[in-house]
Amino acid sequence: MPQPPRESLTLTPVLHALGDPVRLELVRRARDRPESTCAALADGLNVPASTLTNHWRILREAGLISMTVDGRHRRIRVRADDLGARFPGLLDPILRHAAPAPTADGSR
Amino acid sequence: MPQPPRESLTLTPVLHALGDPVRLELVRRARDRPESTCAALADGLNVPASTLTNHWRILREAGLISMTVDGRHRRIRVRADDLGARFPGLLDPILRHAAPAPTADGSR
Repeated sequence: MPQPPRESLTLTPVLHALGDPVRLELVRRARDRPESTCAALADGLNVPASTLTNHWRILREAGLISMTVDGRHRRIRVRADDLGARFPGLLDPILRHAAPAPTADGSR
Repeated sequence: MPQPPRESLTLTPVLHALGDPVRLELVRRARDRPESTCAALADGLNVPASTLTNHWRILREAGLISMTVDGRHRRIRVRADDLGARFPGLLDPILRHAAPAPTADGSR
């Protein structure tokens, strides 16, 4: 899927993309579980599929994630290397303060 | 002006508030020039007054700034202590990567 090259990453779209509880949680999970599918990462968040699609698009266009097609699945990877090169020291403090979101059934 | 107490500050509104180029620049300037007036901080940004009022409100409600009335002026202070207590190590990396915005006349 198309994504901005490293040198085009800009700060405010990254912050905007992370400034939503669902998107922040998706990135937090994706960082902890590389190459997971979109569906697995969204498990328990109780967000409509169309909303999720929009969230993944915003994250991809901001440069936070890359998305690869794997058969019927889409796999997600946080672009930690690209973000670290463009904005050293930015992502880790943000994700450190991102608390795991409670899921609908109370599990994680 | 009303603002959320330190213990109520949450991460995503802070990120959302900073995820806009004008607001990020206002915070960057306010951090460098404490107790400046709203008007002074917005100098050269070429943003309509009503839009600026909205930006200041979003920043205040997210807990990024405090605003005090001083006669006909409003003075701004970044709540660095409160943010540092709630989210240690968050604000500095963000502001370090926030480039000064070019002004309408090319000065800063």
